[in-house]
Amino acid sequence: MQTMVEFKGYALTNTNRAEWTSLEVVPFIPKKFEDDDVELAITHCGLCGSDIHIVRQGWGSPPYTPIIVGHEIVGIVTKVGPKVTEFKPGDRAGVGGRYCPGATTTVLDRHPDGSPSQGGFATAIRANERFVFAIPEAIESKDAASMLCAGLTVFSPMRRNNVGPGTKVGVVGIGDLGHYAILFAKALGAEVYAFTHSPSKRDDAKKLGADHIIDIGNETPRLKDFHKPYTDTLDFIIATTSIYSPNSSFSTYTSMLTVNGKFITVSLPDADKPMPPLHAADLVFSGAYIGGSFVGSKIDCYAMLKIATEKGIKPWVEELPMRELATALEKAHNGDARYRYVLTQDVV
Amino acid sequence: MQTMVEFKGYALTNTNRAEWTSLEVVPFIPKKFEDDDVELAITHCGLCGSDIHIVRQGWGSPPYTPIIVGHEIVGIVTKVGPKVTEFKPGDRAGVGGRYCPGATTTVLDRHPDGSPSQGGFATAIRANERFVFAIPEAIESKDAASMLCAGLTVFSPMRRNNVGPGTKVGVVGIGDLGHYAILFAKALGAEVYAFTHSPSKRDDAKKLGADHIIDIGNETPRLKDFHKPYTDTLDFIIATTSIYSPNSSFSTYTSMLTVNGKFITVSLPDADKPMPPLHAADLVFSGAYIGGSFVGSKIDCYAMLKIATEKGIKPWVEELPMRELATALEKAHNGDARYRYVLTQDVV
Repeated sequence: MQTMVEFKGYALTNTNRAEWTSLEVVPFIPKKFEDDDVELAITHCGLCGSDIHIVRQGWGSPPYTPIIVGHEIVGIVTKVGPKVTEFKPGDRAGVGGRYCPGATTTVLDRHPDGSPSQGGFATAIRANERFVFAIPEAIESKDAASMLCAGLTVFSPMRRNNVGPGTKVGVVGIGDLGHYAILFAKALGAEVYAFTHSPSKRDDAKKLGADHIIDIGNETPRLKDFHKPYTDTLDFIIATTSIYSPNSSFSTYTSMLTVNGKFITVSLPDADKPMPPLHAADLVFSGAYIGGSFVGSKIDCYAMLKIATEKGIKPWVEELPMRELATALEKAHNGDARYRYVLTQDVV
Repeated sequence: MQTMVEFKGYALTNTNRAEWTSLEVVPFIPKKFEDDDVELAITHCGLCGSDIHIVRQGWGSPPYTPIIVGHEIVGIVTKVGPKVTEFKPGDRAGVGGRYCPGATTTVLDRHPDGSPSQGGFATAIRANERFVFAIPEAIESKDAASMLCAGLTVFSPMRRNNVGPGTKVGVVGIGDLGHYAILFAKALGAEVYAFTHSPSKRDDAKKLGADHIIDIGNETPRLKDFHKPYTDTLDFIIATTSIYSPNSSFSTYTSMLTVNGKFITVSLPDADKPMPPLHAADLVFSGAYIGGSFVGSKIDCYAMLKIATEKGIKPWVEELPMRELATALEKAHNGDARYRYVLTQDVV
């Protein structure tokens, strides 16, 4: 069964920053279909903070318009190239962010044939088989979609840093990524310390399974001494949100780490916002490391889907039809998502 | 054989910063001699950058005066407590910096009995056996002294990060620590990239064994693109000097690291000098880590002395009598050391 699909999607058509939520459905020309490509008819696409950054142009003007964002994509395979071995038409599959030298990113990039890469708030997508993931039957499409970036982004550095039983993990910021960080850290067997400024999220963190909930204060600067009881305690801190208020200090976080502990940022603020001032003493005396992580590999992704299946992980997602993308963008930008919007196909 | 020693040394006696090199010989009361203590008659003491920081008060006023600095100490054991098992009077031994929760630092601290800790530009020292190192016969005292902080500070993070054959190591700054970093990285079998602004040090780096010498420019800001040919190349960068000019950028260094590569600072600038502005993107897209390291453990130290013996490592040190400590402090402060001053005993 090979189904003809029409390529169109909800696009930002101009770069007037004030109109960042005015999207319109436009047709686009997909990349040339190659021998190792898979084509999907999209059914679901999650909304990620980086989609908001792109349309709000926090990382600069997009390299082309119209631009269709979205990179947490689940759909049904409509066509496979002759070299594809893992998929056949009719399979359910996903496409996520990409982290690989030489890869074309899902959005903001150009394919080798010169066509701009367009994302998942669209009818269909073509991608090299290496960037397409089989979705286990036990995982609903809306949940799988949000895992392909939000889940993978926090799971990958935890996996690569051996988070597991006996590990103490700090999760800074309980949002879309943070909620996943709690779910996966618990699934991996770790003890979880959730840091949040929001009273309502304290309750959520508990429901998600966090063992300790730490109020970091609702003001800027944060509560001065929230970190003091946790000096030399955490093996791993994942910062899923900006800790970068002008009065913040890195030592707040590094002081909580054990020797060889790691602070990993997966948050990528606008380009004009540096991290807090870092002093060599924060690093030299703690013996800890600071790093970052960007999505994850296909190996990480399959490990994540396996553990999500085994442990029955249920992310907290809200479904909306794609025509409500502008609303979802605004709400997510205002921090009102609990915790991830997944948009469902409705382009006619 | 138990020898009576008199405790006196070259001390900074006032905290007028302008007089940071005016030292005088003063007597002091050592810590109470305990059952697991070793007492040494000091023969050699290396001069470290942190000694300069202390007397120039870059890290703040010293907590007491008179204060005697120096923590690269070699001498002859004069007395051992009844619980000491590793040493006997007459042995040659060393005392270095200390990195251990609950330890008393060699200088700037107080012993449990309340007495201020005094360093090695003195006649003698008492220390817990755990912080005393046997010196292999093949290593001269002047060389061993300088290894106990300068050598160990760069060797320890290389050992803990598995620097060895196949590893590409960047050494930023060819000074006392940097010269050791080249020697030990080569001894461990790594390929060494030496980064320096100084034409004369380029030649030295070559003589020390560096495989690649990179001119980073003699101006501020540095040569703009010195790092470009080394994108994604280095597994490990050790920053032995301040990279912290106002116009510098972390991305210069992180861009040269491979995924999972590490940038380790062992330099500890004055407290008012933060590191260059750090953007989350520097970390997120490189997949690299930033960390620091402070001296090293006794296990690291014995591993270092073993490899120094096996590979016949000869550091570049200059010997001066202790009465010339002020001269050595000034020259070292001006960057004229090639590459470490070791002061020899002359207190009468």
